[in-house]
Amino acid sequence: MSFDFDLFIIISIAVSLMSFVVAWRLYAWVKKQPSDNKRIAEVGAMIKDGANTFMKKEYALLAKFAGGLGVLVLVFLPTPIWQGNAGENFLMLLSFASGTVFSAVAGILGIRASTIANIKTAEAAKKGIRPAFMTGFRGGSVMGIAVVGATLLGVSLIMLITHDPTMLLGFSFGASTLALFAKAGGGIYTKTADLSADLVGKVELNIPEDDPRNPAVIADNVGDNVGDVAGMGADLFDSCVASIAAALVLGFSLDSSAGGGSSFSAITLCFAAGGLIASIIGVFVARMGEKGSPTSALNKSTYVTTGLFAVYSIIMTLVCGFDWRIWGASMLGLFVGMLIGIASDYYTNDERKPVRSAAAAAQSGPALTIISGISYGLMSVLAPLIGIGVSALISFKLCEPLVPDEPLLGGMYGIAMAAVGMLSIVCMIISNDAYGPIVDNAKDLAEMGGLGEEVIDIADKLDSAGNTVKAITKGFAIGAAGLTVIALLGAFKSEVNEAIKVINEAAGHTVHELITGFNVMDPMVFFGLLVGAAVPAVFSAMLMLGVDRNAQGMIAEIRRQFEQIPGLREGKEGVSPDYNRCIEISTVGALKELIPAGVVSIVITLVVGFVGGVEAIGGFLTGNIVSGLLLALFMSNAGGLWDNAKKYIEAGNLGGKGSDAHKAGVIGDTVGDPFKDTAGPSINTQVTVVSLISSLASVLFLTMSIF
Amino acid sequence: MSFDFDLFIIISIAVSLMSFVVAWRLYAWVKKQPSDNKRIAEVGAMIKDGANTFMKKEYALLAKFAGGLGVLVLVFLPTPIWQGNAGENFLMLLSFASGTVFSAVAGILGIRASTIANIKTAEAAKKGIRPAFMTGFRGGSVMGIAVVGATLLGVSLIMLITHDPTMLLGFSFGASTLALFAKAGGGIYTKTADLSADLVGKVELNIPEDDPRNPAVIADNVGDNVGDVAGMGADLFDSCVASIAAALVLGFSLDSSAGGGSSFSAITLCFAAGGLIASIIGVFVARMGEKGSPTSALNKSTYVTTGLFAVYSIIMTLVCGFDWRIWGASMLGLFVGMLIGIASDYYTNDERKPVRSAAAAAQSGPALTIISGISYGLMSVLAPLIGIGVSALISFKLCEPLVPDEPLLGGMYGIAMAAVGMLSIVCMIISNDAYGPIVDNAKDLAEMGGLGEEVIDIADKLDSAGNTVKAITKGFAIGAAGLTVIALLGAFKSEVNEAIKVINEAAGHTVHELITGFNVMDPMVFFGLLVGAAVPAVFSAMLMLGVDRNAQGMIAEIRRQFEQIPGLREGKEGVSPDYNRCIEISTVGALKELIPAGVVSIVITLVVGFVGGVEAIGGFLTGNIVSGLLLALFMSNAGGLWDNAKKYIEAGNLGGKGSDAHKAGVIGDTVGDPFKDTAGPSINTQVTVVSLISSLASVLFLTMSIF
Repeated sequence: MSFDFDLFIIISIAVSLMSFVVAWRLYAWVKKQPSDNKRIAEVGAMIKDGANTFMKKEYALLAKFAGGLGVLVLVFLPTPIWQGNAGENFLMLLSFASGTVFSAVAGILGIRASTIANIKTAEAAKKGIRPAFMTGFRGGSVMGIAVVGATLLGVSLIMLITHDPTMLLGFSFGASTLALFAKAGGGIYTKTADLSADLVGKVELNIPEDDPRNPAVIADNVGDNVGDVAGMGADLFDSCVASIAAALVLGFSLDSSAGGGSSFSAITLCFAAGGLIASIIGVFVARMGEKGSPTSALNKSTYVTTGLFAVYSIIMTLVCGFDWRIWGASMLGLFVGMLIGIASDYYTNDERKPVRSAAAAAQSGPALTIISGISYGLMSVLAPLIGIGVSALISFKLCEPLVPDEPLLGGMYGIAMAAVGMLSIVCMIISNDAYGPIVDNAKDLAEMGGLGEEVIDIADKLDSAGNTVKAITKGFAIGAAGLTVIALLGAFKSEVNEAIKVINEAAGHTVHELITGFNVMDPMVFFGLLVGAAVPAVFSAMLMLGVDRNAQGMIAEIRRQFEQIPGLREGKEGVSPDYNRCIEISTVGALKELIPAGVVSIVITLVVGFVGGVEAIGGFLTGNIVSGLLLALFMSNAGGLWDNAKKYIEAGNLGGKGSDAHKAGVIGDTVGDPFKDTAGPSINTQVTVVSLISSLASVLFLTMSIF
Repeated sequence: MSFDFDLFIIISIAVSLMSFVVAWRLYAWVKKQPSDNKRIAEVGAMIKDGANTFMKKEYALLAKFAGGLGVLVLVFLPTPIWQGNAGENFLMLLSFASGTVFSAVAGILGIRASTIANIKTAEAAKKGIRPAFMTGFRGGSVMGIAVVGATLLGVSLIMLITHDPTMLLGFSFGASTLALFAKAGGGIYTKTADLSADLVGKVELNIPEDDPRNPAVIADNVGDNVGDVAGMGADLFDSCVASIAAALVLGFSLDSSAGGGSSFSAITLCFAAGGLIASIIGVFVARMGEKGSPTSALNKSTYVTTGLFAVYSIIMTLVCGFDWRIWGASMLGLFVGMLIGIASDYYTNDERKPVRSAAAAAQSGPALTIISGISYGLMSVLAPLIGIGVSALISFKLCEPLVPDEPLLGGMYGIAMAAVGMLSIVCMIISNDAYGPIVDNAKDLAEMGGLGEEVIDIADKLDSAGNTVKAITKGFAIGAAGLTVIALLGAFKSEVNEAIKVINEAAGHTVHELITGFNVMDPMVFFGLLVGAAVPAVFSAMLMLGVDRNAQGMIAEIRRQFEQIPGLREGKEGVSPDYNRCIEISTVGALKELIPAGVVSIVITLVVGFVGGVEAIGGFLTGNIVSGLLLALFMSNAGGLWDNAKKYIEAGNLGGKGSDAHKAGVIGDTVGDPFKDTAGPSINTQVTVVSLISSLASVLFLTMSIF
């Protein structure tokens, strides 16, 4: 059966436009939910203003930065403008720019929805847990649908206009550059506020978490939105785009090797669109039963989505006559994604040994909690790394025979399709993830609005469901990113060989041999490997030091306010802290710290490439992937573990709130905050950006390197 | 010029025997130094007894374990006994057994010297810092000389008897197996005692470090000996042997490719013997000037050794007509070792920004100190990884042309010789390292013996010099291990190809193709890479959890004693704690925890090899090396940084002793303890063991793997 690839592009565009309509209707639905509490409206407005101010400043900064990068793209990519085709460079610039714009738009839509949904959820909690859940979840799903819709629309438009998958790498590069900085900026913002508020409030003054007396409490809520909603959305947008881009780059090569046809590229869009539709249905299915728990409601909708996608993909494979091996690889990805999620859950669930042990260690003081958290975090990398390794291996072997002449290409394509499969339900995952900060905000708003114990209790239940599913979705995101970057390594090799062919043709003789891969016994590859492995470590360290520095300033400010504002500590009527000062500190600090870490990673990549050429970069990417996955998994899981160990103690175990164990637990949680919400999840993006740059600059590295 | 390899063997044996005489004389010198304080003798005896008891129990356990492993060696290595030559397997068993015995003997000699030198140093401090320094340093050098002498003797004997470098891998395997468990056991022992003593004593009760009232203080001193002396000695014995083994395996192949001659193997022994002689001279040069500091005395002797070795190696290269490229690679290794040491020093020196920042962060509580320590620890990996990568690259390129037909072999040999060069001064490094725990013990003994402020002050100065040089020597050790394991990866490939040749010859046709390396685009290699990267994480986590568990028991015991023994806390005359109970807890706990982590690493290696064959193992070793180096550097440097940040505060900065910043600093230091003294330095050994097993089992993996 032959495929009209353009038909799939048109259908994808249609699906993505339809999804925007759905997102808009969900947004409208959330907006028209009733709200009347004046205090909540007031605080809600402060959160919204804070978030908007930060986002405006952040995007203004990033626009300048992306503008500068855009000039470099125009001049150098894919080939230096004086050597190659200027039109191609212009298209590349356009792709790059669209990537940044689409990412920004998805982030803005998400923030809009979440800063309304938090108020509405708090108010809905007055009527019970079911309507509150519905409001929170639908608010989150606006972000989920917008992100995946934007992915599909962007990718389809680029393909429609250029029909050149290399341009997709440019689009993806734009998206991940923005994600890199947005995630870093948001992550630094949110954790500066969160950990400072906790350290002074909970540890020093013994006042409850998110108490309105705490000057940093609004900044903390703003952080939830700019970090966990906008930052995370940008991150997953980037993963989604990158996985589809990798699959299409490899799929196009396969299609041309197979002699025309476009089934390998078409199936990518077909599955991506199907995943979006399945997720939208999943969103509408999400409902809490009479006695149901929010956790199981969230899980149920994920299972429904997964089941629907499985069925859809079988049907499409049969109807369109796609090769069943591709379907197999996608299903494998989806399955392994679940397994990784379950493994992450083991290390962060308070009913399992790791969290319980870390909590028990807190009785002997903070040092032992921290040692056990770090230890379990390190152990937690084993299962996911095996999972990623096995799924890459099997999907490679499965798809090796797709085009008999090109086993390596087929295999790499199989890995890319496993990533596409894993990310097919990403819309659902983002929805679940964005639900978290919304209900977290709602809880705080309910407290500030004085809605009473019962309502706060409901909000609290919703919040802890958010934390539980978060571990699983994070595992999923890291797993998918892992497969994606492995596929991007394949795409890099494929881009290098394309470039070599062009160079050899132009010269009329063999200037470079085609490369067959990267041999670790080549010392240049090994050199790259070691340097590449160091980059995620340096990158995450710089982000955490950013949080550390800003938090020291913020802690001093919070202490100052408690000392100097009379009646604040006692909670005297009418006395309120200067929230804006803390918002200001977070904003200014995050803007200052968000650029350097990303720039360092990019610069090191370029230096390695220009010094050691494509062999060094092959090793560099490999080292970067391996150490990036290791550190990302370690940090996310250790952070989640400490968070839940603290919650376990707060639930009244081992002495409960106010005990020494509790104080130790809070310290553990505070160390974990930048682990799990600043550094850990940003590493994915760092690895993706570096992979994309390498692919895009492959011609430069090939022709202009020193060795 | 042709070389009689046997001549070099004989000379090496002579040099090693001579070095034992020197070590013996130094030991005798230390022993005959005067001592008369009864209390010091009493406490010194307790430390000695505790250390001996532990060592006996540990070696008894390890003897059983090694016995079991020996049976497996006999049956399976290098080829299954029913397939191959039983005599060869028996020789392999013998080599393996000698490796374990030599390692144990070196450890026992070291402990003997250090548990006398501590007493003598304390007593010598009464006469001033110069004699005290001399006693401490010479005590440490007994260990240094014994370890390197044992290396040279063992290697030479094996070569003399078998002339088969594969047997050296067996010897090395025996040494590193013992090192793996001895280092783990000693590390768990020492940090259980150390951190428990600090957490209860310094943080909870505000009594000084190493106060005689603290029930864990003797266990802590015992730990210094069994962990930092015996464990560290076993570790460096293992690195030394492994580097020489790798160089000889590759050198033999080169020699045979070059068509007879033995210059490539001979130079290895020649340089190793020269390094030992240079170090012995360096030991005798070590003297403190009238106004000198112990740090500069230690550094001076290191510089003298380095200079002597440089001169020696030039002369020998000229005299024997060795290729200058090999000399170049060795010098490069030595130089880069220094650079890595200096880089480590930057992150752990209290006059530099990282330590100062971490100390400043302590003012905002323990969480921020820990975050900054972790961050700087992560950043600290960049320079050493680049250093290792660059030195591997240059030494490879330098030695590629050694034998024109075998560029890859020559290159890998170059890397091995860089490691040999880096480790040429290892005797000096061990001496400096063993000096640390001796003077640390001496300080405690001076306190317990009531030798007065002035004497304690002298001991304290000696102690802090030990800490300063420790950072540098650790960097050195990790760098050398890094190059060694890269060379072992080369040795693995070379062993695999040897095996393939044998198999093909036996079958009379090509059963397996020779391998050219490990391509990361091969999904089997990538699978191995990911799993291999997880192993050091899991291994170090298991060790730290061992410390964590034991410490919880010990903390409960210390708290119990302070509560139940009347007058203990107040320091009433005649009341002393039950030291033995704490020694018991450390001993039993360490013996229980030392086996599993190593076994897990070994089992995972075997599973990967039997599942994925040599390709998977190639990836596995690569991932293991990369993540092992990353984690080892991170942990060692973060630990050193926290230690010195705490000391910086204790020196009266930022509020000084007893301030909140100090408490936070102590918590940081406590987290760092198992980082830098249990997990971090053990990772080297784990990587080495796994590399050796892979080489030894290459035939099995080749013929019996599932895929």
